[in-house]
Order: sequence, then structure tokens, then C-alpha cells
Amino acid sequence: MANFFQNLTRLQLEKKSFLCVGLDPDAARLPECLRGEKNPAYRFCREIIEATSAQAVAFKLNFAFFESQGIQGWETLEMLQQDIPAGCLSIADAKRGDIGNTASHYADAILGYLNFDAVTVNPYLGHDAALPFLEYRHKGIYFLCLTSNPGASDLQFFPSAENPLFLHVARLVRAWNRYGNCGLVVGATKLEHLRQVRDACPELNLLAPGVGAQGATLSEAVRALGDTNLLLPISRAILYASAGSDFAEAAALAAEKYRAEMQQFL
Amino acid sequence: MANFFQNLTRLQLEKKSFLCVGLDPDAARLPECLRGEKNPAYRFCREIIEATSAQAVAFKLNFAFFESQGIQGWETLEMLQQDIPAGCLSIADAKRGDIGNTASHYADAILGYLNFDAVTVNPYLGHDAALPFLEYRHKGIYFLCLTSNPGASDLQFFPSAENPLFLHVARLVRAWNRYGNCGLVVGATKLEHLRQVRDACPELNLLAPGVGAQGATLSEAVRALGDTNLLLPISRAILYASAGSDFAEAAALAAEKYRAEMQQFL
Repeated sequence: MANFFQNLTRLQLEKKSFLCVGLDPDAARLPECLRGEKNPAYRFCREIIEATSAQAVAFKLNFAFFESQGIQGWETLEMLQQDIPAGCLSIADAKRGDIGNTASHYADAILGYLNFDAVTVNPYLGHDAALPFLEYRHKGIYFLCLTSNPGASDLQFFPSAENPLFLHVARLVRAWNRYGNCGLVVGATKLEHLRQVRDACPELNLLAPGVGAQGATLSEAVRALGDTNLLLPISRAILYASAGSDFAEAAALAAEKYRAEMQQFL
Repeated sequence: MANFFQNLTRLQLEKKSFLCVGLDPDAARLPECLRGEKNPAYRFCREIIEATSAQAVAFKLNFAFFESQGIQGWETLEMLQQDIPAGCLSIADAKRGDIGNTASHYADAILGYLNFDAVTVNPYLGHDAALPFLEYRHKGIYFLCLTSNPGASDLQFFPSAENPLFLHVARLVRAWNRYGNCGLVVGATKLEHLRQVRDACPELNLLAPGVGAQGATLSEAVRALGDTNLLLPISRAILYASAGSDFAEAAALAAEKYRAEMQQFL
């Protein structure tokens, strides 16, 4: 049985894409035409999935946007995970992290009960907190390494730019990758940091938000890495490509534009 | 309107307790007599709350144990938050952490929608990720600082024992405490670390798991801190004090034992 990263590589080559559509259904930004729906976030995400699944290799569900809708949000998460078609992988962007027995329950909730193909995890608690996730050997475990927000420097560059925590994390995760099921979340805003992470971890897949919208262009990012062993999550530029009733068509067009740019590298 | 930490201090003095009962309802460890219930975890936690609310000043709900039960678990969380009586505070042990808009949705989910009095947050993403939580000025925001698990040293002692990340975090959180709504999660297994955190942050309340079960005794911990500006979460020693149908009475007795030990310091 192929594991998450093997499946991902195969899909990337088949579809000539490393696009990951980020599902962050912000209630305040959903199209007007869905406001009367019983569960507008579900309807919205389902249509986005249908419209973009030919271009994307993965969908990343941002748990915060579902949890803020309470029980209905949790139901929506469960339903959407099941709606993701064959040919696309599901990533739980949950950024969990806790010790021992608690970490096991988070891993079981997300990779067991909800059955996501991959999950994002916060590394702050170290190797034994990572272990219950790592034991899901066929899943993908993306550890937060470097984020693209201003406050990233508070901890991630401690104690110095020459010896920053984020590179220490990259090296730790490389050592945790015994089953080939680890990846890293690396905000792609600064090319030199992408390059530093790639040098530290030549074989790890990177989930790299920030290309396009926040920083480096796609070709700059691929050149800095020297490979396409990455997933590029795009949320708002696809989800909210149109605020009208043509939101799904507009999302499909936006996704196709990204994929067309990607195919030259694959 | 008093904020979380003012309320906590008042309750600590009134009840002569700094006991926080941790609700981690592990399906595999619930008493036999509840197995036939429609929602055993809810029934179990509700009885524990009733049995121990005279001794405790707070209840800490460990989100992992509810999320692993899917939609029913989320319903249980909502119901239990409402069952916590006046005279006790509610803490969401969720350890969330994400950037900007996503962090806002987590803060709104937990402190808004679910209306918990306090929450645990992971500091890895820095100040702007903390901000949406900090803006809930009357709530309590406990940041992970030092944990008591073996893997804690992987990141929290980077780059060296002389200049460890956890003390850097303690100083950062002190600077984030503009509204007096910050606290720290500090595993109380090593007295010297408790003392180092207290020296770095004389005014911050500590949520300090690990006393008793894992490491230092209560009086050693209080002596190391030099104060009682802390909350001591106890889970298994209270929840599973008896596996029989007398689990609630046994929990009450165990809680009273802890409180009796605490009152000498208050």
C-alpha cells in the first residue's frame, strides 16, 4: 500500500500540478447567493471541490473555520472529507500538538475517525508528542517549521538568524521521518529560507503557503528549492475569485491558471 | 468587570484551593456502570463536576478526548461548558495556534461560541498569532511554555540549558500581558525550572501539571515558586479514583485530599 507522499508524487506527475486548494470558508465572505442555504459553508466548499478537483492534487481543510461554526461546523468537516474525490488527497490543517495520551486522541480523531490523508502538527512538544501521529505510517504528517506571518520571528528565529529554531525543527523532523511520512510547513515568503530548509532536508515534501499572494513567485520558489517536492496551498485567490453566483466557475478558472503555471515544472 | 485572573484569585482565597480538575474522559477507562449510557462521557464528566465543584476552582476540558468522539464529542463539550457551576472557571485545553485570520476563528470558536473562561495556546507562531486571543481581555490565555514530557527538550531547551527557548517564551508572554490576561503552562516536574520561570515572570499565573503524579510534591512546588499564583490540574488521580459505581464519591474524596493539602498555603 502506497503511503501519502508516494500517492502525492504520483498524482503530481499524473495531473501536472502541485496545487492544494485551501478550504477556509469564512462565513462573512461566502457568496450572497448561498446565504439562504441551511449550511452555506458546506454547499460552498462542496461546489469548490467539484469545480477544482481536476486541477488540484489535494484539499486542505482549515479546522478553525469549521470549529467556529460549532457542531454544524464539525458535521461539515466530516461530510467534506467524504466528498473529496479519488485523485485528490485530504489534508487536515489542524496544527494540533499535545503530550502522550492526548496526542494519541488528536491523531485518532483526525487520521482515524475523520480519516484525513494528512494533518498539520505543531512541533513545540517534541518527539514523543509527534509519535502518535507518526505511527499512522501511511498518512502524511506535516510539521510546522517556518510560518509567513510577522510574529514568526518571535520563536522561529530564536536565538539568532545564524542558528534559528526553524532549521533545528527541520533537522528534527528529518530524524523523525523513519517511515517516510513526514513533511514540513514552510511559508514561502523568503527564498533564502526555502533554500535553507531544502538544504537541511533534501527529501521532505514542503507544504508552502505564501507563494504568489504573499511573496515569492512560483518559478522563484521552484528554482530556490531545486525541485517540485512541494504542495502549494491557495485559498482566497481561488475561493473568492468571484463573489457572485459564478463563484465555482471563477474558482475553476483561477485553479486552472495556477495549474498551467505549474505544469512547466513537472 | 473582573477578568479571568482576578476571578481566579478571588475563588482561590474563598475556597482555599488552587485545584483544577482535568476532564480527559478516556472512553476505555470510563466506569463499567456507564457503558450502557447513550453518552457515557457526558454523564461521567457531569457527575465528576458535581462531585468536585466544591473543592475545585476550575475545570480543564481536554479537547482531544472530545474531538476523538466526533460530533457527539463536540456536543458534549458544549453541554459540559454550560454545566460548570458558578464558583468554578472553565478552561479549554485546546493548545491551538495559527496565523492571523485563522487564529481569530479559533479564538472565536473557543472563547466566543463555546464561551470558555480561558484557553491554552501554542506560542510557536508568535505575537500576531497570539493577538486574536489576547483581544479577549476578560478571558485567560495560557501559553505553552514548558511541558513535562521527555520530548520537551527537543525544542524547549534549544539552543542550550543556559539560554533555553522556554525562558524566551516566558519573557515574550510577559510582554504580551498588557491586559493582564496571560498565564503560562509550566510542567512542574523540575523545581529549578519552576523557579526560573517564576524569576522571569513574577506576576504570571502558572497552570502547572505534573505535581504529585509526575514529579515535585505540592509543598516543594509552592516553595520553589514562592507564591500560590498557580493552578494545579489533576486528571486521572481524581477521574479514575474508583472504577466502580462509586466513582463520583471517590473523585470527591480525592479532590478533597488535594484541597486539604492546598489550604495550608492560602
